[in-house]
Amino acid sequence: MTRATLIAKIRERKSYLCVGLDPEISKLPSHLLEFEDPIFEFNKQIIDATRDLCVAYKPNTAFYEAMGLKGWATLEKTIQYIGNEHFIIADAKRGDIGNTSKMYAKCFFEELGADAITVAPYMGEDSVKPFLEYDNKWTIVLGLTSNKGSQDFQMKQFSDETYLYENVLKTVQHWGTPDNLMFVIGATHPKKLAHIRTLAPNHFFLVPGVGAQGGDLTEVSNAGLNSDCGLLINASRSILYASSGLDFAAAARQEAQNMQAIMKNFV
Amino acid sequence: MTRATLIAKIRERKSYLCVGLDPEISKLPSHLLEFEDPIFEFNKQIIDATRDLCVAYKPNTAFYEAMGLKGWATLEKTIQYIGNEHFIIADAKRGDIGNTSKMYAKCFFEELGADAITVAPYMGEDSVKPFLEYDNKWTIVLGLTSNKGSQDFQMKQFSDETYLYENVLKTVQHWGTPDNLMFVIGATHPKKLAHIRTLAPNHFFLVPGVGAQGGDLTEVSNAGLNSDCGLLINASRSILYASSGLDFAAAARQEAQNMQAIMKNFV
Repeated sequence: MTRATLIAKIRERKSYLCVGLDPEISKLPSHLLEFEDPIFEFNKQIIDATRDLCVAYKPNTAFYEAMGLKGWATLEKTIQYIGNEHFIIADAKRGDIGNTSKMYAKCFFEELGADAITVAPYMGEDSVKPFLEYDNKWTIVLGLTSNKGSQDFQMKQFSDETYLYENVLKTVQHWGTPDNLMFVIGATHPKKLAHIRTLAPNHFFLVPGVGAQGGDLTEVSNAGLNSDCGLLINASRSILYASSGLDFAAAARQEAQNMQAIMKNFV
Repeated sequence: MTRATLIAKIRERKSYLCVGLDPEISKLPSHLLEFEDPIFEFNKQIIDATRDLCVAYKPNTAFYEAMGLKGWATLEKTIQYIGNEHFIIADAKRGDIGNTSKMYAKCFFEELGADAITVAPYMGEDSVKPFLEYDNKWTIVLGLTSNKGSQDFQMKQFSDETYLYENVLKTVQHWGTPDNLMFVIGATHPKKLAHIRTLAPNHFFLVPGVGAQGGDLTEVSNAGLNSDCGLLINASRSILYASSGLDFAAAARQEAQNMQAIMKNFV
């Protein structure tokens, strides 16, 4: 998906919501366990309930891989079911030496047909470049993540007084363009977000951490939006598990609607 | 596999060789293409030809994922075929927030039955800990990698004059013990290896970069060995593709034998 198409979809749906598809079998409403593939049935109903309220879906590959071969098949079916009207992010946090990253790019862009993949920057340029070589596909590099562990290395200060995450943002943006590169910036650092926006004014940020992890949607929007929107705000658990009963899809829709009701004031 | 068992196998086989299983369909000897699963047949013959010469196998998950569902099945079969007499490393470079890393650990340790997984440190402690919670399983964290991109961030200097990779080694070793934690240290930095050994004297290092990437086995052994051996030296392409003909397995064995002939002088 091109940047222009993504922005058009954001304007049309008045939403920059990304729904994270991180399904855990132990958390599914029990009536779904009768289906042959309960996880796929769950995803299907969540997708149907939220299609008009979001612009992106983000399956977290770990939750599918943990189920082995069957899980990989469910991931394939889920991506096919989402279709072409949404931006599909494989949240895979991959990254390796060049010939290996090339294989991961093949997997997620060619085999699975995702629009984007999340990538870890630790191994540097040749580990990120193979993802950037695809037309109309996106590489989303970890900048400042939403978890407590972001303090351990990302927030360490280099000798030029910049933090590692700042250095990653400044360096990595020269490897791609705002048309094929985004950054992951956690919603749990709202005070830093305005500053981070100055470091990469034109890039989209994928923002996890609203909802279960405690980030605030209005605060993040105020600090992070740019003139092209520039944000994809993800919620996973708060939408997926809004109810554990027969009404789970309706409850998920309500939760997505609550978020979209705030977003529509911003785009 | 426990540390004591791993060391016993190293002493017994007089080898600390790890054979990387990174099979590419385009590089396979053409006579294998007639098999139903050419990649598995290739792996099987490589494994049979090298079993007595190595202590570890390291399937690189990207090469299997790139083939979709079929590739994932080949990875499962390959790990089963290796069996219990070798240390099995899933070279997956994973790492995410806690609830997600927990899923990756489940995938590689429970579903696939690997002994170890490679993990990227960028997201910090809570992204690494879930892997360390398994008994007799190993987490192999990226320290200084073998590729050119290791210069981009790993070799950046912090305000206390340490490099990022040094900081990772010093910090991460307190999250686990030499019984469940190793580090990836590329063979392409031989001059740094003796220094790196002083930073983590008791941990095993997984050393890629000998062979196709240019690292020297004797130099690496001299600089990196400790009293428990403490090294697993990986070769992938130089063994797998030693010949592209009918004799590929014999040629792979010869290449592994050349490496073991050097290693036997050290252990």
